[in-house]
Amino acid sequence: MKRAMLYEGKAKKVYRTDNPYELLIDYKDEATAYNAEKKAVFVGKGQLNNAISSILFTMLHEAGVDNHFIRKLSDTEQLVSAVTIVPLEVIVRNVAAGSMAKRLGLEEGTPLSQPIIEFCYKRDDLGDPLVTEDHIRELQLATESELALIRQSAAKVNDVLSTYFDALGIQLIDFKLEFGHKEENGQLVLADEVSPDTCRLWDKETGERLDKDVFRRDLGDLSTTYQKLLERLGAAQ
Amino acid sequence: MKRAMLYEGKAKKVYRTDNPYELLIDYKDEATAYNAEKKAVFVGKGQLNNAISSILFTMLHEAGVDNHFIRKLSDTEQLVSAVTIVPLEVIVRNVAAGSMAKRLGLEEGTPLSQPIIEFCYKRDDLGDPLVTEDHIRELQLATESELALIRQSAAKVNDVLSTYFDALGIQLIDFKLEFGHKEENGQLVLADEVSPDTCRLWDKETGERLDKDVFRRDLGDLSTTYQKLLERLGAAQ
Ligand SMILES: Nc1ncnc2c1ncn2[C@@H]1O[C@H](COP(=O)(O)OP(=O)(O)O)[C@@H](O)[C@H]1O
Ligand SMILES: Nc1ncnc2c1ncn2[C@@H]1O[C@H](COP(=O)(O)OP(=O)(O)O)[C@@H](O)[C@H]1O
Ligand SMILES: [Mg+2]
Ligand SMILES: [Mg+2]
Repeated sequence: MKRAMLYEGKAKKVYRTDNPYELLIDYKDEATAYNAEKKAVFVGKGQLNNAISSILFTMLHEAGVDNHFIRKLSDTEQLVSAVTIVPLEVIVRNVAAGSMAKRLGLEEGTPLSQPIIEFCYKRDDLGDPLVTEDHIRELQLATESELALIRQSAAKVNDVLSTYFDALGIQLIDFKLEFGHKEENGQLVLADEVSPDTCRLWDKETGERLDKDVFRRDLGDLSTTYQKLLERLGAAQ
Repeated sequence: MKRAMLYEGKAKKVYRTDNPYELLIDYKDEATAYNAEKKAVFVGKGQLNNAISSILFTMLHEAGVDNHFIRKLSDTEQLVSAVTIVPLEVIVRNVAAGSMAKRLGLEEGTPLSQPIIEFCYKRDDLGDPLVTEDHIRELQLATESELALIRQSAAKVNDVLSTYFDALGIQLIDFKLEFGHKEENGQLVLADEVSPDTCRLWDKETGERLDKDVFRRDLGDLSTTYQKLLERLGAAQ
């Protein structure tokens, strides 16, 4: 049922299937950072991210967050609903870290008084720039009602994931989401991936990084880190 | 009546006066660009900007836009109400140019379907980063009601200036404003300067630049350019 490759991104390959409304996503072992200036391969990473995102998407479905995930197909593959991606990276932050800490001159780890949502224009050639609602309107990246739905869903994802990770002794610092319109019926749903590639996760006790910052900042082996995370999620199943 | 210097910025020196509610602003001949990486002195620039901003602030007063300008004192000096500056650069855009064109991958000169307002955090050490309303709230740079007043005033300034320049055969492409709370009574008013240092102005016929881009992009002598602009404003008096 796996047909022609539709596109290859930095972290995943996307294939057509026999069903025009379904795609197959194959998670790669490659890791990239800083707009792909830094790259490396970690054996087992694709398998780990496929397993983790399958668990998280399933959990989000159960919590009422509509998303593209249908089912896990193999070690590195999952079946998803085909969507047209809204070209926005939707970032939700609970604690200042990464680009926002740097941009605003905040110390990494500073708790935010309430969650912050940022939108970046998904354009690798421009370095995925931060955009305001005025820019989104001008570029027609999303309508106001789509933005309202995205904000609502992103806030729900934050609540659900924060609670889930908290129970595992992990703090959800921030994460990036992508949304898209289902080819089948136009419904706006959460798509792409929810994984340690796209979330910042800190151990609540030790502050240990359980996410891609381990690669960005050369703190250790990424597959070992993701394996540890998967084990903690697995224990919660 | 000119007392101790309060601070020296990139384009102006600010002095106390005998009246605690009034300051003296002395416009300098220096020009800076790209966060002060590029610098030069243009003899006569201070005098020209003082003259131009005096004309524009007076005109804005008459149009009902409350601002800090009291009166012109000398060639390079003007008397203003002392304010506590809101640490935001308020940018209004009618046509894509400069940093926004670059950021969003738009060709310079692309008209916008409606004016765009951007807020940058006034922090030279951070390069005055673009911020969203979420960031403004988190950093407590302005309250929601202050932001609403600022948006309203900025839109009015855009209407008034656009109409004024249009009658002179000049298109107002974009501009940067600063607002502050009057020391005397807390009133939020337009402050800082409105000049070719802070506006992009293009001749409607020829596209000639009548603003600081002449310096940024080495298109000619800045004082000659500002002199030409002042003459066109003078003809309108
Ligand atoms: N359900 C889906 N339907 C269509 N495209 C998708 C879906 N989920 C994710 N995508 C897209 O698949 C592409 C490949 O993912 P990835 O490797 O993460 O790409 P990128 O290099 O853009 O980060 C991305 O452009 C992503 O937006
Ligand atoms: N009415 C005012 N009261 C107090 N400060 C003011 C007033 N108008 C402008 N300022 C401030 O005066 C400083 C000097 O101006 P400028 O040379 O343009 O500084 P900068 O290098 O920050 O651009 C700026 O910080 C500006 O915000
Ligand atoms: Mg991706
Ligand atoms: Mg200034």
